[in-house]
Amino acid sequence: MKLNIAVLAGDGIGPEVSDQAIKALDAIALEFDHKFSFNYAKVGGAAIDEYGDPFPQETLELCKTSDAILFGAIGDPKYDDAEIRPEQGLLKMRKELGLFANIRPVKAFDSLLDKSPLKAHLIKDVDISIYRELTGGIYFGKKEVSQDGNYASDLCEYSKKEIERLAHLAFKAAKTRRQKVTLIDKANVLETSRLWRRTVTELSKAYPEVKLEYLYVDNAAMQMILNPKQFDVILTENMFGDIISDEASVIGGSIGLIPSASIGDKYALFEPIHGSYPEATRKGIANPIAAILSAAMLLEHFGLFDEAEIINYAVEKSLKLGITTPDLGIKHEEISTSKVGDFIADFI
Amino acid sequence: MKLNIAVLAGDGIGPEVSDQAIKALDAIALEFDHKFSFNYAKVGGAAIDEYGDPFPQETLELCKTSDAILFGAIGDPKYDDAEIRPEQGLLKMRKELGLFANIRPVKAFDSLLDKSPLKAHLIKDVDISIYRELTGGIYFGKKEVSQDGNYASDLCEYSKKEIERLAHLAFKAAKTRRQKVTLIDKANVLETSRLWRRTVTELSKAYPEVKLEYLYVDNAAMQMILNPKQFDVILTENMFGDIISDEASVIGGSIGLIPSASIGDKYALFEPIHGSYPEATRKGIANPIAAILSAAMLLEHFGLFDEAEIINYAVEKSLKLGITTPDLGIKHEEISTSKVGDFIADFI
Ligand SMILES: CC(C)[C@H](C(=O)O)[C@@H](O)C(=O)O
Ligand SMILES: CC(C)[C@H](C(=O)O)[C@@H](O)C(=O)O
Repeated sequence: MKLNIAVLAGDGIGPEVSDQAIKALDAIALEFDHKFSFNYAKVGGAAIDEYGDPFPQETLELCKTSDAILFGAIGDPKYDDAEIRPEQGLLKMRKELGLFANIRPVKAFDSLLDKSPLKAHLIKDVDISIYRELTGGIYFGKKEVSQDGNYASDLCEYSKKEIERLAHLAFKAAKTRRQKVTLIDKANVLETSRLWRRTVTELSKAYPEVKLEYLYVDNAAMQMILNPKQFDVILTENMFGDIISDEASVIGGSIGLIPSASIGDKYALFEPIHGSYPEATRKGIANPIAAILSAAMLLEHFGLFDEAEIINYAVEKSLKLGITTPDLGIKHEEISTSKVGDFIADFI
Repeated sequence: MKLNIAVLAGDGIGPEVSDQAIKALDAIALEFDHKFSFNYAKVGGAAIDEYGDPFPQETLELCKTSDAILFGAIGDPKYDDAEIRPEQGLLKMRKELGLFANIRPVKAFDSLLDKSPLKAHLIKDVDISIYRELTGGIYFGKKEVSQDGNYASDLCEYSKKEIERLAHLAFKAAKTRRQKVTLIDKANVLETSRLWRRTVTELSKAYPEVKLEYLYVDNAAMQMILNPKQFDVILTENMFGDIISDEASVIGGSIGLIPSASIGDKYALFEPIHGSYPEATRKGIANPIAAILSAAMLLEHFGLFDEAEIINYAVEKSLKLGITTPDLGIKHEEISTSKVGDFIADFI
């Protein structure tokens, strides 16, 4: 298979972890006789530096002419109080590319069970797939500030269509998994949540083999810790998804392990869920696993399941052997970001 | 001291746990020569049954003429799909009584460390006080549904004044504690969050001894599990407070242990944070500790610190001796809701 991949490495540790994902993809291409070509563009703080825009036209063009996007991380403290901020690039990119579905797998790796803040028996075999709506809700509704600056508002809005297109993906995924979808909302308070409930309940009839459950977001925040094994596919709106998926990311013991896919009708982007971690930049201590697993999600997206499987297997191997960056605290010798990448690429 | 206390026991297990709180208050009155009188009114499903309104005028009147309100729990599955729902009573009550500050202490009891889903070393000595805004934000902004039902919206709004009055309480509390306030928001996305940041940053200058930190809500949801000891006072808006405080409630091993106070300029209400737990109603298995600790918060509110201290001490004693309801799973013999209440009252 031939794939043109846009690499938007972004800020902080973004470039160094993306490099390891590319190594893994190169190894796969070699092994399976695929042709992956990589083209680079700026995003986030790196793009503000160069273009004064965190998601410049050049970058948008490259994304639109590529088959997939490999994304690193975004965020730079030097822009913390600036008018134009790196995160705006992320939101603009999601919206302009129509990446409405953010998919995050949450798993507990056996070799890392004791790294989790949760007790091992609660998390062993946890396997959750979170479907978060990514281009609507309070993120993109009208925002206002009064002239005197003493009042502000954010509008949360949803249409049935926006809910349906994501819900279909979630139910389809559930069919291939443990046949359960949990809708997380706040239907006892929010009108948008009631729209989610109505829409998803109606649509669920087309998937009779899938069980639909409802959970208020406050309760979900508890259940995620008390009994994460109860979840199979989670379906939720943008802001609740942001909170619940980050909370869920602690289960596996490290946020440095969780990849994600952001999918739209036309484009697809793959990125680790961790941030740009500025303090770690260019120290060789950033964990590349989440970026490498994002590359595996990219392969799956194109139906290259065997290839993805090999990456996943190589990652498990590296964890089992303790070939990991210091954040996982497995071995005492220091193993760098790029050493982990090399091990995984060699293994492939 | 003479106190007129309105008892709004509400639905499900509300009445039985409230009874235990009253026992404790009666014991305190006897011991310290106070006069506490209790007057009862309906709220929630119980009030819909009788008045067709989850927060009827009679109940409002009683609240307004009382010194404090002891609240049980609200929610009844039989109204799940009804037009008028029990939770509306809760929101109406908060708004009409101006209860803008919801305060929830989160502690890990030493005798329950092994009941927590989190590892003991992470939670030992956790002592957090959450200040959640309770009468604003997306809970009370304008809600809309399109005529065809295919679009819905909820408006999140805040004014500087709403933020300031809560922030002052949080900073004052921090002064008497470990001098740290963590503001939880989503200032990288929401205009209202940026208003919170500006307002709280400005106001913090009046409390130079208190350290102010900022945390995005998604990161906060992780930090609460990874390292809850970092928190002293948490300050946040209504919806984020709902989610984060419920998440935090798992730390102590049981939601049945966490009391809360909802305070306004004129009125003050005290309630366990758990819900009405319909499946447990009248089985004698509901944990009364949260309700009893809410009574202790009531006493503190009126400056009766010694009295509150004794209740807290009695609760710790009951936990240590294993005189607890089955949910805590400490002893094998079954000890009922009212036996726990009796033990605590006798101890006092
Ligand atoms: C950086 C921020 C705007 C973003 C979000 O809230 O969506 C991030 O937290 C994420 O989850 O990708
Ligand atoms: C019942 C519900 C409306 C309420 C809320 O969201 O405020 C509850 O979760 C709470 O925290 O008191």
